[in-house]
Amino acid sequence: MTASINLAHKLATFSDHFAPRTVATFNGLDIMVVKIKGAFQWHSHSDSDDFFLVLQGRMRVETEHGQADLGPGEIFIVPRGVRHRPVADDECHVMLIEPTGMPNTGDAATAAPRRVI
Amino acid sequence: MTASINLAHKLATFSDHFAPRTVATFNGLDIMVVKIKGAFQWHSHSDSDDFFLVLQGRMRVETEHGQADLGPGEIFIVPRGVRHRPVADDECHVMLIEPTGMPNTGDAATAAPRRVI
Repeated sequence: MTASINLAHKLATFSDHFAPRTVATFNGLDIMVVKIKGAFQWHSHSDSDDFFLVLQGRMRVETEHGQADLGPGEIFIVPRGVRHRPVADDECHVMLIEPTGMPNTGDAATAAPRRVI
Repeated sequence: MTASINLAHKLATFSDHFAPRTVATFNGLDIMVVKIKGAFQWHSHSDSDDFFLVLQGRMRVETEHGQADLGPGEIFIVPRGVRHRPVADDECHVMLIEPTGMPNTGDAATAAPRRVI
């Protein structure tokens, strides 16, 4: 038997917000889960699109071009270079995909550390 | 307002099995949804890992090294070069991530065409 990865079980192992955990890697990308609540800082990534899939709860991605509202089973991709911030009024559980090592704030000086669980 | 993508709504637009639809692109990858039922052919991809996230139903990924059982909210990544086949006893809805243009069978001669919805 080879192990699958249960995203809800991984999310149950931590409680802090805007602190993504890497649960797998795929082609040089980190597959991550994160709990968000409140507003993250405005930022952009010059070299990567930004992928969001809501697993539980609701969130919105505010961008310089408009706002996307997301619930469970909904995805949104921010094109590279577009300024944006994720916001959740209540706690929301999200799957992210980012190139391994990419700073989540767009700036290595303020980025969350890479955490693998 | 910027549009999010509802994966269930995309899945409701087709009924054929093992015929992935691209719903978005991310860093040169296709984000796809697919309905599977029965067993796909054994294959491998020499240049890409293979990503599965179950959205509804149950499936298994049989590999040369063992089998992974997946239900909703569970992911499994087949490392590049590993022979595998997805199998579902009953219809299962899955999100896939593959490099744009990669043949789903590992062979361009037998691959499903790229369909964007």
